[in-house]
Amino acid sequence: MAMEQIVKAFKADLAKQDAIHHAMGVLQYDSVTAMPKGGYEELAATMGYLSELDYKFQVSTERKEMLEQILAHKDEVDSVTRREAEELSEELERVSKIPMDEYVAYQMEQNVASAVWEKAKHENDYQAFKPHLEKLIDFNKRFAGYFAPEKPVYDALLDQFEKGLTMATLDQYFTAVRKEVVPLLKATQEKGRAIDESFLSRPVPVHMQQKFSDELMKILCIDREYCGIAETEHPFTTNFSKHDVRITTHYHEDAFVSSMYSVIHEGGHALYELHTGDELLGSPLAQGTSMSVHESQSRFFENIIGRSEAFCAYLLPRLQELFPQQMQDVTAEKLFLAVNNAKPSLIRTEADELTYSLHIMVRYEIEKRIFAGELSVDELPEAWNKLYKEYLGVDVPDDTHGILQDSHWAGGMFGYFPSYSLGSAYASQILARMRKELDFDGCVRRGELQPIVDWLTEHVFKYGQLKKPGEVIELACGAPFDPTFYTDYLKEKFTKVFAL
Amino acid sequence: MAMEQIVKAFKADLAKQDAIHHAMGVLQYDSVTAMPKGGYEELAATMGYLSELDYKFQVSTERKEMLEQILAHKDEVDSVTRREAEELSEELERVSKIPMDEYVAYQMEQNVASAVWEKAKHENDYQAFKPHLEKLIDFNKRFAGYFAPEKPVYDALLDQFEKGLTMATLDQYFTAVRKEVVPLLKATQEKGRAIDESFLSRPVPVHMQQKFSDELMKILCIDREYCGIAETEHPFTTNFSKHDVRITTHYHEDAFVSSMYSVIHEGGHALYELHTGDELLGSPLAQGTSMSVHESQSRFFENIIGRSEAFCAYLLPRLQELFPQQMQDVTAEKLFLAVNNAKPSLIRTEADELTYSLHIMVRYEIEKRIFAGELSVDELPEAWNKLYKEYLGVDVPDDTHGILQDSHWAGGMFGYFPSYSLGSAYASQILARMRKELDFDGCVRRGELQPIVDWLTEHVFKYGQLKKPGEVIELACGAPFDPTFYTDYLKEKFTKVFAL
Repeated sequence: MAMEQIVKAFKADLAKQDAIHHAMGVLQYDSVTAMPKGGYEELAATMGYLSELDYKFQVSTERKEMLEQILAHKDEVDSVTRREAEELSEELERVSKIPMDEYVAYQMEQNVASAVWEKAKHENDYQAFKPHLEKLIDFNKRFAGYFAPEKPVYDALLDQFEKGLTMATLDQYFTAVRKEVVPLLKATQEKGRAIDESFLSRPVPVHMQQKFSDELMKILCIDREYCGIAETEHPFTTNFSKHDVRITTHYHEDAFVSSMYSVIHEGGHALYELHTGDELLGSPLAQGTSMSVHESQSRFFENIIGRSEAFCAYLLPRLQELFPQQMQDVTAEKLFLAVNNAKPSLIRTEADELTYSLHIMVRYEIEKRIFAGELSVDELPEAWNKLYKEYLGVDVPDDTHGILQDSHWAGGMFGYFPSYSLGSAYASQILARMRKELDFDGCVRRGELQPIVDWLTEHVFKYGQLKKPGEVIELACGAPFDPTFYTDYLKEKFTKVFAL
Repeated sequence: MAMEQIVKAFKADLAKQDAIHHAMGVLQYDSVTAMPKGGYEELAATMGYLSELDYKFQVSTERKEMLEQILAHKDEVDSVTRREAEELSEELERVSKIPMDEYVAYQMEQNVASAVWEKAKHENDYQAFKPHLEKLIDFNKRFAGYFAPEKPVYDALLDQFEKGLTMATLDQYFTAVRKEVVPLLKATQEKGRAIDESFLSRPVPVHMQQKFSDELMKILCIDREYCGIAETEHPFTTNFSKHDVRITTHYHEDAFVSSMYSVIHEGGHALYELHTGDELLGSPLAQGTSMSVHESQSRFFENIIGRSEAFCAYLLPRLQELFPQQMQDVTAEKLFLAVNNAKPSLIRTEADELTYSLHIMVRYEIEKRIFAGELSVDELPEAWNKLYKEYLGVDVPDDTHGILQDSHWAGGMFGYFPSYSLGSAYASQILARMRKELDFDGCVRRGELQPIVDWLTEHVFKYGQLKKPGEVIELACGAPFDPTFYTDYLKEKFTKVFAL
């Protein structure tokens, strides 16, 4: 067959698999935004069958042959097709090591475990979740053995979310961060000024917060023609193409900033997906290059823009217009200080910018020990609570506010958490570069985020997975990754916030 | 192969196809409840591929062989499997007459046409919708030719929604209804008392109406564990199993009864699907037996219960509690009269119980003429407007309030509309039978609908498609269908409402 025809058949094969991914993505999204709880068993069955189809696409003989042909004649195909072939070839190799039965059983267990976890969290019932967590851990141990028997299990898992990431790298990174953050946090507690954040808990009815979300989407330059917003307990972003991206948020009457920062954070993820290159439309490469680069964008918008002095100054009059009763006596400075009132806390998703990485370190330590075989599921709550005491100095009152707080493990995601912290670090370094090329603070102060979105499109978003995570970060920063930008950023910001 | 093994393989095949239906159903639901508009092209592609898979299940050689085996040994299998085999055998025969390309192209055209229609309706732009409507009509003409070349096209289409239904039957039915309804309507206009309905348009904020919807779901005895509610412009019900049913409604600030009756109507559909027999779980028979029987249930709840004097009396104090400002000076009688203020109007979905069938007759006439080749798409708006003048005496101001008002044609549903009217007629006859067996008015007046739901479960819901539409209606009514119950019901009710 001529290469042209092979490529055509390859693209047709990808399009079919994309349809299965699309369906699975929407089913997953629907299950947390709209599905009545009672439907989860039927959903698990449907997802099981679709996973089976997906698996077959990933490892089919036809695909294998097409990939071999394309990779043997790399120079004859365009760069998108070449990268697709490389990525899918790696995927084929990895996935074909997992027997189909196990692959499907794992997909189904994730659905069941997620439903059980949600209930267990509400009822503070770790025992109910425990057997499912154990199953998921066992699956992951087995899979890691299939993928990379020569590596420590946890390294194999980290590699899934960030190619090449290892415990060795992360140990070094977290040590550097911890060295700076812990004394800084201590200083804020001992010498920092008192910050009034009481006005943040003034009740704002949900329907008023929903209007505010729409306003925020506009400020973020998100085109609603291609991006929806819904409500879930745990905010997230998903996408089925650059023409169909969804974010979710949650509303708490007495914490409007909780939804506000969820919308801005998820909005950052959405902007990435909305701005992958047009030439990638329909390609499996049309998505963020890795979880940590994704988090660098969401946290750029949430923290670097959203928690900046300039943005608070821009936002205040808008907030006062929408929530006059609640916001009339607030000043821009008061708002800026309140949303940056760093202090040890229990819940990662509500944590401030300074202590956030400490929450991640707890999870990183726990995951490392689980997969080193040093911690059984029985021992997890105690280990969790001990680390929270050690790193953050807080007592965990119950598992709902402890080990059960995050959805990730129920979804089978082990090795994901470090992405959040790495993402923050990347974001700080990207900021330093961006500042050299555009009037970042001026744009933010005027609420004109389009130039920032354009800059990120040009330096990050457009590539999708055409480039690897490390390449994208290096291109965007103009230099290899260096965590000093992050620790310097935190020092400068929190010295100012707490008038140290 | 032993029959036991054949049945096992048959059920496994059904389960896989059910997964595809589940995915398509959720994608469809999502597309109108959550999907950003920009995603419709990618959705059409995905639906196209899933339709292809669905088609292959329907007509596969393996299935054909299994069906032949099962039908050749009917006595060796249980009644559910037997009915499944009969139904799927008919489906196989029908669908295998359509070439797969056409089948898939048709599914995709429905998605595109629906998106175009929605925009066209908003912009009063029939010309934009026209070419898509024409394509859908052509598809249906062709399909009818494949299915039943010996029949008139429209009879073949009617048969899809109600097996055995013909123009001959409907002409007779509509003539009988028209004979009674037209003079009755005239009498209400000429001699009826004036009814005050002004309070129905007092503004009620959407978030307050949403609370009321939750209250209505409770009154309807709908278990939210298995039934969700969302917002769409055009209310509808869909279901993926008896454990996952969804209804939708729309909210208009100045017409809270519009949403109220949408919730009750769709609630009736939902109750049907929530109460099909447990032994049908996972079977293609686990759904309402036909569109008109489905409509008989939704209209039973909407009109016979929801617009009764007893229900208005029950509801008023609840309404006054939820909407005190808007409802304080309203009495139960005023509410009952206002929600039954029959008068000619433009929009079917907002029409009262008396004039409703006239709206259906317009559509029935138009569809008949389209498929008799007597009306081209160019002539449709004029024909529509003329019939509205003739049947209802109203002038249609624009296509948004005329030919573009309904979503059905854009979804490829031709021959569906008569179900609505037939459903109302069935409902009246079911009521007569129910009254003999339980204290209907007492239950409704006390807001205790559970005995009614139980009665309908026993006489209608539980069968799903185990029985054919005619059988179900005859079992429920204890006699063959007789439209006199309907016309008598209307006469009695509207004589009372208008004090004739």
